[in-house]
Amino acid sequence: MLPFRHHVFICTNRKPDDDGCCAARGSEEVMQKFRAEIARRKLQSEIHVTPCGSLGTCGHGPNMVVHPDGTWYSGVTVEDIAEIVEQHLLGGKVVERLAWLDNEKLHQTIADNRAKSLAKKQA
Amino acid sequence: MLPFRHHVFICTNRKPDDDGCCAARGSEEVMQKFRAEIARRKLQSEIHVTPCGSLGTCGHGPNMVVHPDGTWYSGVTVEDIAEIVEQHLLGGKVVERLAWLDNEKLHQTIADNRAKSLAKKQA
Repeated sequence: MLPFRHHVFICTNRKPDDDGCCAARGSEEVMQKFRAEIARRKLQSEIHVTPCGSLGTCGHGPNMVVHPDGTWYSGVTVEDIAEIVEQHLLGGKVVERLAWLDNEKLHQTIADNRAKSLAKKQA
Repeated sequence: MLPFRHHVFICTNRKPDDDGCCAARGSEEVMQKFRAEIARRKLQSEIHVTPCGSLGTCGHGPNMVVHPDGTWYSGVTVEDIAEIVEQHLLGGKVVERLAWLDNEKLHQTIADNRAKSLAKKQA
């Protein structure tokens, strides 16, 4: 049995030299408000929210992933939080306008970012 | 369909004033070696590994969680990585000696740590 109905991870990675990273795009505020929304609705024993490092979809953030279904969201703002909580976490329906619906495209984006990051380290 | 067969999150949280936090217990090395092991086995398109912030089981770390099954592991060392990859991620069998098998105990530990952290902030 799952310990939590949903476990939400929100990227709060900050790259000092990259204004396209999640933190530079406001993910820390998304994280704080998401947690506050879960606490306000007394859902902490059902929905666990954890900050995380890069999910690999850098440049599209703020990024988050919802488990166990593995839904990947990008471009999430504080205005989207209520909709994700209500429609997806409580209602079971993915917010399609923010989700990666094509796994192949998601994998390619992550692989491209990994290659870019590796090249940068080796430069 | 899940974007990854498994998504592993490893806590690399560092609390400067707490030598019981995951980073102080060696989680950054666990993270690096876990990723290297996945890369060595060419499993990157099947198993995604992401560093994360506190999972709430502080003091028991290094902590990690494996999704979609939501298996919570604590006290993971670099010596345990091959076993977790082979037995659990490839073989589908949880490494019970490292896992939280009692969800109620897990929830209570997380709630206790949350209360402790809140009290510290308010002090």
